[in-house]
Amino acid sequence: MNGSSFGNYFKITTFGESHGAALGVIIDGCPAGLPLSADNIQTYLDRRRPGQNSYSTPRKENDLVEVLSGTFEGRTTGTPVALLIRNESQRSADYSEIASYYRPGHADFTFDAKYGFRDYRGGGRSSGRETAARVAAGAIACALLGELGITVCAYTKSISDTVCFGTDDYLSGRFSLDELVSMRDKSPLNMPDAEASARAERFLDELRGQHNSAGGTIECILRGLPAGLGDTVFEKFDARLAHAMLSIGAVKGFEIGSGFGAALLTGTEQNDAFYTDEAGAIKKRTNHAGGVLGGMTDGSDVLFRVAVKPTPSVAAPQETVKKDGTPYTASITGRHDPVIVPRAVVVVECMAALTAADALLGNLGSRLEHLKKLY
Amino acid sequence: MNGSSFGNYFKITTFGESHGAALGVIIDGCPAGLPLSADNIQTYLDRRRPGQNSYSTPRKENDLVEVLSGTFEGRTTGTPVALLIRNESQRSADYSEIASYYRPGHADFTFDAKYGFRDYRGGGRSSGRETAARVAAGAIACALLGELGITVCAYTKSISDTVCFGTDDYLSGRFSLDELVSMRDKSPLNMPDAEASARAERFLDELRGQHNSAGGTIECILRGLPAGLGDTVFEKFDARLAHAMLSIGAVKGFEIGSGFGAALLTGTEQNDAFYTDEAGAIKKRTNHAGGVLGGMTDGSDVLFRVAVKPTPSVAAPQETVKKDGTPYTASITGRHDPVIVPRAVVVVECMAALTAADALLGNLGSRLEHLKKLY
Amino acid sequence: MNGSSFGNYFKITTFGESHGAALGVIIDGCPAGLPLSADNIQTYLDRRRPGQNSYSTPRKENDLVEVLSGTFEGRTTGTPVALLIRNESQRSADYSEIASYYRPGHADFTFDAKYGFRDYRGGGRSSGRETAARVAAGAIACALLGELGITVCAYTKSISDTVCFGTDDYLSGRFSLDELVSMRDKSPLNMPDAEASARAERFLDELRGQHNSAGGTIECILRGLPAGLGDTVFEKFDARLAHAMLSIGAVKGFEIGSGFGAALLTGTEQNDAFYTDEAGAIKKRTNHAGGVLGGMTDGSDVLFRVAVKPTPSVAAPQETVKKDGTPYTASITGRHDPVIVPRAVVVVECMAALTAADALLGNLGSRLEHLKKLY
Amino acid sequence: MNGSSFGNYFKITTFGESHGAALGVIIDGCPAGLPLSADNIQTYLDRRRPGQNSYSTPRKENDLVEVLSGTFEGRTTGTPVALLIRNESQRSADYSEIASYYRPGHADFTFDAKYGFRDYRGGGRSSGRETAARVAAGAIACALLGELGITVCAYTKSISDTVCFGTDDYLSGRFSLDELVSMRDKSPLNMPDAEASARAERFLDELRGQHNSAGGTIECILRGLPAGLGDTVFEKFDARLAHAMLSIGAVKGFEIGSGFGAALLTGTEQNDAFYTDEAGAIKKRTNHAGGVLGGMTDGSDVLFRVAVKPTPSVAAPQETVKKDGTPYTASITGRHDPVIVPRAVVVVECMAALTAADALLGNLGSRLEHLKKLY
Repeated sequence: MNGSSFGNYFKITTFGESHGAALGVIIDGCPAGLPLSADNIQTYLDRRRPGQNSYSTPRKENDLVEVLSGTFEGRTTGTPVALLIRNESQRSADYSEIASYYRPGHADFTFDAKYGFRDYRGGGRSSGRETAARVAAGAIACALLGELGITVCAYTKSISDTVCFGTDDYLSGRFSLDELVSMRDKSPLNMPDAEASARAERFLDELRGQHNSAGGTIECILRGLPAGLGDTVFEKFDARLAHAMLSIGAVKGFEIGSGFGAALLTGTEQNDAFYTDEAGAIKKRTNHAGGVLGGMTDGSDVLFRVAVKPTPSVAAPQETVKKDGTPYTASITGRHDPVIVPRAVVVVECMAALTAADALLGNLGSRLEHLKKLY
Repeated sequence: MNGSSFGNYFKITTFGESHGAALGVIIDGCPAGLPLSADNIQTYLDRRRPGQNSYSTPRKENDLVEVLSGTFEGRTTGTPVALLIRNESQRSADYSEIASYYRPGHADFTFDAKYGFRDYRGGGRSSGRETAARVAAGAIACALLGELGITVCAYTKSISDTVCFGTDDYLSGRFSLDELVSMRDKSPLNMPDAEASARAERFLDELRGQHNSAGGTIECILRGLPAGLGDTVFEKFDARLAHAMLSIGAVKGFEIGSGFGAALLTGTEQNDAFYTDEAGAIKKRTNHAGGVLGGMTDGSDVLFRVAVKPTPSVAAPQETVKKDGTPYTASITGRHDPVIVPRAVVVVECMAALTAADALLGNLGSRLEHLKKLY
Repeated sequence: MNGSSFGNYFKITTFGESHGAALGVIIDGCPAGLPLSADNIQTYLDRRRPGQNSYSTPRKENDLVEVLSGTFEGRTTGTPVALLIRNESQRSADYSEIASYYRPGHADFTFDAKYGFRDYRGGGRSSGRETAARVAAGAIACALLGELGITVCAYTKSISDTVCFGTDDYLSGRFSLDELVSMRDKSPLNMPDAEASARAERFLDELRGQHNSAGGTIECILRGLPAGLGDTVFEKFDARLAHAMLSIGAVKGFEIGSGFGAALLTGTEQNDAFYTDEAGAIKKRTNHAGGVLGGMTDGSDVLFRVAVKPTPSVAAPQETVKKDGTPYTASITGRHDPVIVPRAVVVVECMAALTAADALLGNLGSRLEHLKKLY
Repeated sequence: MNGSSFGNYFKITTFGESHGAALGVIIDGCPAGLPLSADNIQTYLDRRRPGQNSYSTPRKENDLVEVLSGTFEGRTTGTPVALLIRNESQRSADYSEIASYYRPGHADFTFDAKYGFRDYRGGGRSSGRETAARVAAGAIACALLGELGITVCAYTKSISDTVCFGTDDYLSGRFSLDELVSMRDKSPLNMPDAEASARAERFLDELRGQHNSAGGTIECILRGLPAGLGDTVFEKFDARLAHAMLSIGAVKGFEIGSGFGAALLTGTEQNDAFYTDEAGAIKKRTNHAGGVLGGMTDGSDVLFRVAVKPTPSVAAPQETVKKDGTPYTASITGRHDPVIVPRAVVVVECMAALTAADALLGNLGSRLEHLKKLY
């Protein structure tokens, strides 16, 4: 079982546990000539870093990234880029209690079922900290996409039942992507709607008082992708995206375009009409497809949403069992976010970027004429 | 771009267009010794076959499967099993019209964008007919699971806004899986709720009169999976399932357990309490997780849902363009299901079985003690 | 264990046993727009077909190939190309004897060790007949290479101790590749040296009288490959070639350039001097490297040799055991080539072409500037 | 192009350049429960380390390995094991000269051809130093094999035309594997024949005086492998081995069992007779097959040889060109081994171990009865 790689062409392989020596990632397949520095990557890691506001764990980690290989004089060389992030905050805590029982909503039980034992320090490989390696790799994917004029942007769409104003407001020209990002970055919850964010903050303060936690949804847009990315059968662009998203720890659902809403529409409502714009380009009047038709990008924005479950670590007492099966009442104290959603935003963005970078490379050989152009 | 394979251990590779000579699949990695005959496979293909009732296309295809390799004296040999399904109904229709414009909601435009041209006969590789190969392969996966006491069962959960009575009714002991299957098989829509099915049938009859189509959702249960299947990072069991489901043509969303509903719950609501049953086994009181914790199966039922969009081929007039960009009003006549959902049920079941078979094989090497037991 | 695929980008997956219903292959990843007909493929299969002269088995197989998918109006569409070759000569022979004992030099014993039983009819999946699927796929790879001005040419270099006149004669301009092919095609042994061929034929006639068989070597040239194909570490171009060659049933060795001879040279002898030719291109004065430096093609001919063992099926009596371990004297009668080498020539050529096609596609994303050129 | 991974089940991914910050490897797929410490790995790295005697470069590298993840309380956890080796000896040398021209026998030219530029410091990714990561990973594979009673042993078979006494002396019981290792470890050239080693040492001293270098061969034995490892078509055990071996920088040839010698034998000579030993086990009287029949291990020793070219870096003057094509006479001074063979011995051993570990894991699902035993 070797499931720590993602991507077939722009391929990443990650390692690291929450309380081991380090986390890291190897990116194999990044084209040569991409301008890259540790700073580019650090910017993304800083967005994921804990302790930035009262809604994220106060764990102090600088999460400084070191580029170990694959660059020369400020550009990628085509060989594997390895990134290292040391764990600084490995407190010699007493884990004997947590080692003895199964936390509800966590992977303690399944780790034991699979491997016979587990690294119980801070969640080990199943910790949210694992996503730091994805973000580091995703930053490089974003740099690659940027060179081709492609932008990826995710944001908190809802926290519990507090939802940002309509998707159409963002997408139908009321705001530009830049404005969306700017509004998002003003919210401690990464929610690009000041009023909704304030309401969600109050709700979270309340929940925290109850030693409980909340879930929410994240929306993500990929703009500027050429049409034709993704394959027609198993490696559909949206299938890869769904895979990428459900591989993020707390994600329980994925939908693209009208998504589950499509189940309620009729054919004439769901179908997007084609038309020719003034410049002569073929466009779609609507985007219920979410930018993917038959598994291939159609040139519109790729637009999808994911559902994130509430933080499973809550201080409220919960029924569970010890390893030997005896009953136990768990109350998980310590540093835990009351909501995972805001910190997962950059993870969603990075996994989407990795999916797109992979599809871009995978599509190069789709036509004989491409080969004739390059050879 | 070679996206016609699925699975890393129990690996299938499919081929075939709607109106080419044949469809088929190679299953590579099926363990030796599995009892298998063409009849086992035919049973599954017959469930997918068109023309079975008034809600599926009257296209006449017997979809007879031929086993070309990989079996000997009624058992798999460990070498690739190849399955062939001839296309019988290749009518020499006039496709010149369909070749000239882009059908809304279809892959015509994206095929041209990717490859420069397309096999426009009946949707080519993007036809729903492509799923016949998946079903044939999935039948073998089901046979393998069956040997290990694992059952997969999917059914129509809703058509437009007509929903079967609650999931809890099926799952909390009111009905057994066998009863569920039996009720499902009585409905032409594969809806295991006679009353809801009748309502949905009336709705579809109405829609058909309007030359329109409907969407819906499918629910699927995997029962009997051992705990520990799936990997902890990118190859999570639910990530693989999501990939499998979104790879089915008309699927626009995937959710596991409480799914998008989890975004509305608190931590204490979403977490499933562990307890020890009378036999001493560790169980969960609820299953909001949908049977997967940290990417690994937890021994409960794996339970997920997918959203299926309405059939894109509708006779109602639709705005679109020709290949050269000139406006065109499309009205797609011919044999098309008013709803895809019922026929997709067996496809969902088969893709789930393929995912599970792959995870079962992938998990064999998870512990050194397993190797010591076998070598 | 799913080892019936080869290639990461131009990926083939084969199936079929010697005496099953059919053999075949799916080619996934072939670029769209490649002119292709069944005739192109048949030409290659005809070169492999048995019964063409007294040195190959008289088994009568027309080996007619059927293209099942992936082409439209004479060109590949980018979707999987499936090829089918029916087994015509499935004689209802009595295999009970061969089923009971282990033939020396064959895979009977190892099949039983791996799978617990085997399809004993004519060698099953381990039959030389398996290579028909490779050749069919290789023909498409050759067509792709041809579009880019790349030629692949293999020939019998030696049979037992009868060796063609020196490699340098072929390669240093005494003959062109076309002349080499023309001389090869005149020899029933595919040996482009009439005198050596005649000697080898006499030797084989003698061996046949002794119910014995001979081995030999095959040499192969790839001309016209652009520099830079192959990866720098594990997926070196020569490593992939070695893999491809040793995957052919009877091959026991592989060497590139000076090969095992390099072990006897000094550094100054082995190294190829670079110079600039009149047209300003950087060339090498010699080619001891065999056209690969550091795992990447260097623009010279790629030149390699393989060792082929003698046909293991001989009528001379051999010591062996039955399945239950009791001693048995085997004398394998029936239709068997006294030498495998000549028929393996086209297999070597096709596996080399598949390796090159895969490397060509895999190299497309090596530079950011390539992406900028195509997107 | 992402060729820095090896293995499908026991999968390694390496990174690192000769003069970058570090080298390293991620091992993904190692079963949980394997006892492992940094010391186990260090022992192997120490065998590869330069500066151990007068026949290896005096570069001072301690090559200390750090285990970054994947172990807990002295055992592997089943999650990725990451290993890091810092480059200590990154001298701020002046590389401007080496940057300007193409060294014969090196990858300078092909790197530029592929990527447009290169990291010219000390050979970059193509340096022999890259193998440190393979050795670190291979040490873990060796530990895994050791738990199952499998031994891997490589040694210098020849240097130029100085050959150890016959293979049969080692293999037919005159020496045990332990004795072989002990004799090997006494030779600075890893040559388990004191007399031949002394002769080769004198020859190398002479060559060094001439600013030249020598090649040689390495032989490797895998003992204790169960029968049935490897696949029957493309992933044959020997095909994987050939791939592994040719992926080592200076290797130009691979042969298994009688290898190229098989081309000179008759069928009755090459075939190994089966017999039943006193314990009732089926054995082979000879091992011309080299332990692999039809791509699967047959229970005998797997025995193969590789050809290693002479060190390409020689101080003797060589004709070459600058990047712009102007003629240049290169004389490569600095720290270079007069022969690569002795230091490559442990690399061969480790790549063989990685191949075997991968095949062991890949074979677990070969029979349905295996699954029934584990689930």
